[in-house]
Amino acid sequence: MCLVVVGSVAYDGVETPHGKVDRMLGGAATYIGLAASYFAPVKLVAVVGDDFAQEDFELLAGKGIDLEGLERVPGKTFFWEGKYSDDMNDRVTLRTDLNVFAGFQPKLPESYRSAPYLLLGNIQPALQASVRAQMNGLRLAGGDTMNYWIRDFRGELIETLRDWNFLLINDSEARMLSGEYNLRRAAARILDMGPRTLVVKRGEYGAILFADGCHFIAPGYLLDDVFDPTGAGDCFAGGFIGYLAQRGISSADSAIDLQELRRAVIYGSVMGSFCCENFGVDRFRTLTREEVEERYREFKACTDF
Amino acid sequence: MCLVVVGSVAYDGVETPHGKVDRMLGGAATYIGLAASYFAPVKLVAVVGDDFAQEDFELLAGKGIDLEGLERVPGKTFFWEGKYSDDMNDRVTLRTDLNVFAGFQPKLPESYRSAPYLLLGNIQPALQASVRAQMNGLRLAGGDTMNYWIRDFRGELIETLRDWNFLLINDSEARMLSGEYNLRRAAARILDMGPRTLVVKRGEYGAILFADGCHFIAPGYLLDDVFDPTGAGDCFAGGFIGYLAQRGISSADSAIDLQELRRAVIYGSVMGSFCCENFGVDRFRTLTREEVEERYREFKACTDF
Repeated sequence: MCLVVVGSVAYDGVETPHGKVDRMLGGAATYIGLAASYFAPVKLVAVVGDDFAQEDFELLAGKGIDLEGLERVPGKTFFWEGKYSDDMNDRVTLRTDLNVFAGFQPKLPESYRSAPYLLLGNIQPALQASVRAQMNGLRLAGGDTMNYWIRDFRGELIETLRDWNFLLINDSEARMLSGEYNLRRAAARILDMGPRTLVVKRGEYGAILFADGCHFIAPGYLLDDVFDPTGAGDCFAGGFIGYLAQRGISSADSAIDLQELRRAVIYGSVMGSFCCENFGVDRFRTLTREEVEERYREFKACTDF
Repeated sequence: MCLVVVGSVAYDGVETPHGKVDRMLGGAATYIGLAASYFAPVKLVAVVGDDFAQEDFELLAGKGIDLEGLERVPGKTFFWEGKYSDDMNDRVTLRTDLNVFAGFQPKLPESYRSAPYLLLGNIQPALQASVRAQMNGLRLAGGDTMNYWIRDFRGELIETLRDWNFLLINDSEARMLSGEYNLRRAAARILDMGPRTLVVKRGEYGAILFADGCHFIAPGYLLDDVFDPTGAGDCFAGGFIGYLAQRGISSADSAIDLQELRRAVIYGSVMGSFCCENFGVDRFRTLTREEVEERYREFKACTDF
């Protein structure tokens, strides 16, 4: 079943210990959409400038992503530049040019509005809410946020979260949002805010799913080399929602099937791990669905006891 | 089958965000021995001063730990004092008084020498080697080390490791010992040094087992409250070797049974998690074998997919 993905489409400049790329395709919606496209038909909502390259358009279209909602306006595409630390656990932002993204007002094409799945990438909470409000017949909706919105747009964010079925954030964001350091207690507080499912991402250490009074701990995949972690969290989100959309999972009646949620977390981890294997979105140029399934089996093999 | 445990028996002063204890029973061999005693008969080798309290002696003896090898000499028992950071991921050592531990020359009672299992706690590598040399008929031997020995006694440590079946260290120690940041590559280098099994402990994030070309990732247990993490790594070691001793696992012919090693890592994680639930060794005063099994099942439940 098809899935609407909203967020940034951008150009990134990235430096890691493995090299430096001055300008390459990036942005949360790009990563989410590419990762999700392995599981379900994706409909993208984003804005780019008139500098957006035809080859990048073709990469997305080539994955079957519906680009009717990719608005093209005069000006430059969102540009972000960052540099990673030697261990790649930290990064500094060197430059953020919002460009056309500053005026982003997501408008859903008519053909998007009845899609049953919605993934709201990290943008201003009020914009996330406006997208949510444009849709009807949703089976499952949720998304991501970040420290900036948690700190400076707290009321607006909490209002927005009420209508979500799931929230995907990292551990420091979960601590900031809940005011609790301990993750078990942080999760309990966040689950009181609306979403019945919470996934706390822990970078190289994997992720924890909290739902329905239970939790599930997924390890991070042990990569031989991390080339570029940019977008890994978004690819996690794409794999997670993509799998749930593929399976037609619904939040309609009660809690979501816990076993399916666990598998969705593993598929999220799988897609996040592939993302790190090359710069930017490059790994998705060659990645096959068979490789995705093979890595899912590897996760099984390295956690079973 | 019985197990010889060598290392420090100490008094600790510990401050965590949950409180402060000026002096309580501690030391690597104490924690390893207590944790292992839930699985197999333990024979302790350590040294204490004439200030060592009768009640502490009784706590160990009450767990069935053989104390014939616990030497008592004139002077004071090893004393360590430390303070944890607010998130308990860091600690500073405020005081280290080696006292009688400075002259520790482990001598194994005759009745210990044919024990089939040996766990060498973190002491000088040459002393670990001398203990290993006093034993015959070992089915499995291994232990722990730390940054100080890796940096300043490297040659001696590498010589010592050659005779071990397994090594248990934390992630930063694995990186320091191997010279590789990536854990997969670090593990490959360390497995070339002698031990055929490596367990890399990752604190709250769990542990990774490397053996026989495979790896197994165990999560950390999500505690509601971490009262005091002192000794958690040693309790991990105690649960790990204790389980292998209980099951009579041998390295005699080839690689150790991988499924049993995986279960041993989980039992290690179980014992490490209990250790954090109270100050010092206090949790072991009341912990039952039934609670250990219950937590093992919890690990299964929160990792299965």
